[in-house]
Amino acid sequence: MKVAKFGGSSVANADMLEKVANIIKDDPKRKFIVVSAPGKRFEDDIKVTDLFIQLGEKYTSGQEIDEILNKITDRFLSITQDLELNGEVVQRIKDETKRLLNDTKEESNLKDSLKAMGEDSLARVLSAYLNKIGLKASYVNPRDAGIFVSDEPGEAQILDMSYEKIYQLRKREGIIVIPGFYGYTEKGVLMTFPRGGSDITGSIIAAGIDAELYENFTDVSSVYCVNPTIIDDPKEIKSLTYREMRELSYAGFSVFHDEALIPAFNQNIPVCIKNTNEPQKPGTMISAEKQHHNGPIVGIASDKGFSSIYVGKYLMNRELGFGKGLLNILVEEDISFEHAPSGIDSMSVIVRSDQLNKGKEQRVIKRIKEELQVDTISISHGLGIIMIVGEGMSSRVNVAAIATTAIAKAGVNIEMINQGSSDVSMMFGMQETDINRAVQMLYHDFIELSEF
Amino acid sequence: MKVAKFGGSSVANADMLEKVANIIKDDPKRKFIVVSAPGKRFEDDIKVTDLFIQLGEKYTSGQEIDEILNKITDRFLSITQDLELNGEVVQRIKDETKRLLNDTKEESNLKDSLKAMGEDSLARVLSAYLNKIGLKASYVNPRDAGIFVSDEPGEAQILDMSYEKIYQLRKREGIIVIPGFYGYTEKGVLMTFPRGGSDITGSIIAAGIDAELYENFTDVSSVYCVNPTIIDDPKEIKSLTYREMRELSYAGFSVFHDEALIPAFNQNIPVCIKNTNEPQKPGTMISAEKQHHNGPIVGIASDKGFSSIYVGKYLMNRELGFGKGLLNILVEEDISFEHAPSGIDSMSVIVRSDQLNKGKEQRVIKRIKEELQVDTISISHGLGIIMIVGEGMSSRVNVAAIATTAIAKAGVNIEMINQGSSDVSMMFGMQETDINRAVQMLYHDFIELSEF
Repeated sequence: MKVAKFGGSSVANADMLEKVANIIKDDPKRKFIVVSAPGKRFEDDIKVTDLFIQLGEKYTSGQEIDEILNKITDRFLSITQDLELNGEVVQRIKDETKRLLNDTKEESNLKDSLKAMGEDSLARVLSAYLNKIGLKASYVNPRDAGIFVSDEPGEAQILDMSYEKIYQLRKREGIIVIPGFYGYTEKGVLMTFPRGGSDITGSIIAAGIDAELYENFTDVSSVYCVNPTIIDDPKEIKSLTYREMRELSYAGFSVFHDEALIPAFNQNIPVCIKNTNEPQKPGTMISAEKQHHNGPIVGIASDKGFSSIYVGKYLMNRELGFGKGLLNILVEEDISFEHAPSGIDSMSVIVRSDQLNKGKEQRVIKRIKEELQVDTISISHGLGIIMIVGEGMSSRVNVAAIATTAIAKAGVNIEMINQGSSDVSMMFGMQETDINRAVQMLYHDFIELSEF
Repeated sequence: MKVAKFGGSSVANADMLEKVANIIKDDPKRKFIVVSAPGKRFEDDIKVTDLFIQLGEKYTSGQEIDEILNKITDRFLSITQDLELNGEVVQRIKDETKRLLNDTKEESNLKDSLKAMGEDSLARVLSAYLNKIGLKASYVNPRDAGIFVSDEPGEAQILDMSYEKIYQLRKREGIIVIPGFYGYTEKGVLMTFPRGGSDITGSIIAAGIDAELYENFTDVSSVYCVNPTIIDDPKEIKSLTYREMRELSYAGFSVFHDEALIPAFNQNIPVCIKNTNEPQKPGTMISAEKQHHNGPIVGIASDKGFSSIYVGKYLMNRELGFGKGLLNILVEEDISFEHAPSGIDSMSVIVRSDQLNKGKEQRVIKRIKEELQVDTISISHGLGIIMIVGEGMSSRVNVAAIATTAIAKAGVNIEMINQGSSDVSMMFGMQETDINRAVQMLYHDFIELSEF
């Protein structure tokens, strides 16, 4: 049995839903279907979930909601009309929305219930359409599926008790369509997952039913080994290990939210990234063990927007507790760090720049100066990070040499190297403006020149 | 005016003291002389200071001290006889030792006072000898010189008030011979400095009198650019910056204790390492600014005996405070860390192995497991570290490439790279057994091939 999850762009309109239905029809093992809410159909379109959020905000601040509710029902109306379905779902959206607005007491519960309406309605539409084209399918609400979660609106965590209940779904006849993104507390209150919510639902169902495969349908045919805005038409990655995926997703690879896959990873369920528009393509397979033998590097991730906090103090390395003291100030200022390269008398802490602002920056500088009695402290911005990732790198003595030589050939000064904790990645820091040149040369030397 | 400090091997016997006297005579600017206690004359010899420590221990535990006191007086007797000086100093050692043993109430004060006797007596000997050969010289006790320190036996710290007093020494006529290693509290109690004590005194005097140069006479002609047990007859370093010296001294370069130089560094006094046996050689000059333009790398330091504590936890990098929590456990266990390379889901902490023992190791593992709820934790030993150091490296894009290529050519797997905080060093971790091969190739590629 397989679990297939279709993302927002895969269910954005009737055309896409027909493709989804064909994909489901094509493989009888695709028994468990998880769907997102309709996403954008074009660049400036608004996702259905965002419309629901706006609706909630307008209502809460006492504004008129009819116009935005019409926008939502229009989107579903166009889908159901194009699919030649009846207007039941559209009517249900109107009724249910009004019921929620009237009956829900807690604002956070109202917000979560509205946010979940897009997924819920789309699952009902897809189920109806599958039946219409002759497949036996049923909509199953997450509560009935057994998705029990913690009482944290917008940040729900799955409860372990869920999996046993979910396993019972295997016995059900026909195709089961489950809306992604939310579950229920034991008391029956709807809670949404954090970002990547539909991926989380798919991953939970895959783990719960012990799927042979979790297919994650999106709008790319596979994971590229490098950002396609930096390299034209880069090679596609056929297979990745969980660890490689995790390292790649850290910096710039945002095909999906990697933490969403934890439930599937924990059960060793292989995951396949596929394209709803090109389902015949093999996609990218993610599993615990490496399947193909690639070169030492499977992918090159890069990201911008980092800052470096540099601290210098003579004899720092003799001072027990200095590093801890520095990190402690950052924790207290709610700043999480990415890397912390250290010298004898200096330590740098690399953080994402969006965690800083002028006021916080000055406060951090002041605190470090006063509490740690440092000689020098400075914060610099505009740092970029490149990560080269691959299970193969740990057994090759020359990976660091190839990488640093490539970056030197690109004329780029490496400001930071971090290697040594993960054996599947190596990290280089440099000026943001140098990132593209360095990535291009790394791609050339590691991937174009190797049998990939 | 110059300050010249002579280490234990430079004052080990009468022959050496004659060389010292000639060095002083050679340059009238050498007005301030700081001396250690007589060091080893041969491999299995015992330093005078160690004899005094043994004497104190024997006395405290109620044992007979005559034999060891005789050993001490015999050493000074042979020096004074060879130099044809009278027996005044030898008699003084006997009398003063007995007085200290009878009169000193605090055991820690007794220990410090005995430890300082070697330096004190040698300074008296040298002063007498300088006068004998026609130089005007006087022994000046650290109290009279103005060396005031904190009340921390064996760990004394200089008090800022000292420097004004020391500056007054400039007015004195003739050569001033000051015993190194100790000072006095404001209440007049003798306290010794931590290790490297005579270097500390020299550095303090140099700072206090605003010397044009602080000459540190030892038994090597200069600082080698690499450990001579790894490379035969390596090149000598003509000049170093303070920062380079500090980075080099971290791993394996122990010509002197770098923290001893802080007072001189703070006053921008240049320091010259010279050999008492070859005073005509230029030695190695250490100053704030680079004087010669070497290649990008001035030296390669290496050291063994490191351990790595590896911690893995899925989604670690999303967990605010994880790094701080890990370092906090180490602080509480009194373990200071050297480097802390981090991955997305992992963090390694490199510590000196001598900080661990079986019990501590198991306690640290248990605490990290329980308190931080990690997925994996392991400790591995036998790690070595190489540091390449040079002010020139920050402006060359290819230093990392040359270094990693050299290490790869040596067939060595780099387990860790730490670069990014200090701009004058780059650190590589590897198996201890690989250190020598890697250092040899780095030396070849960076230093033999460059105009040094």
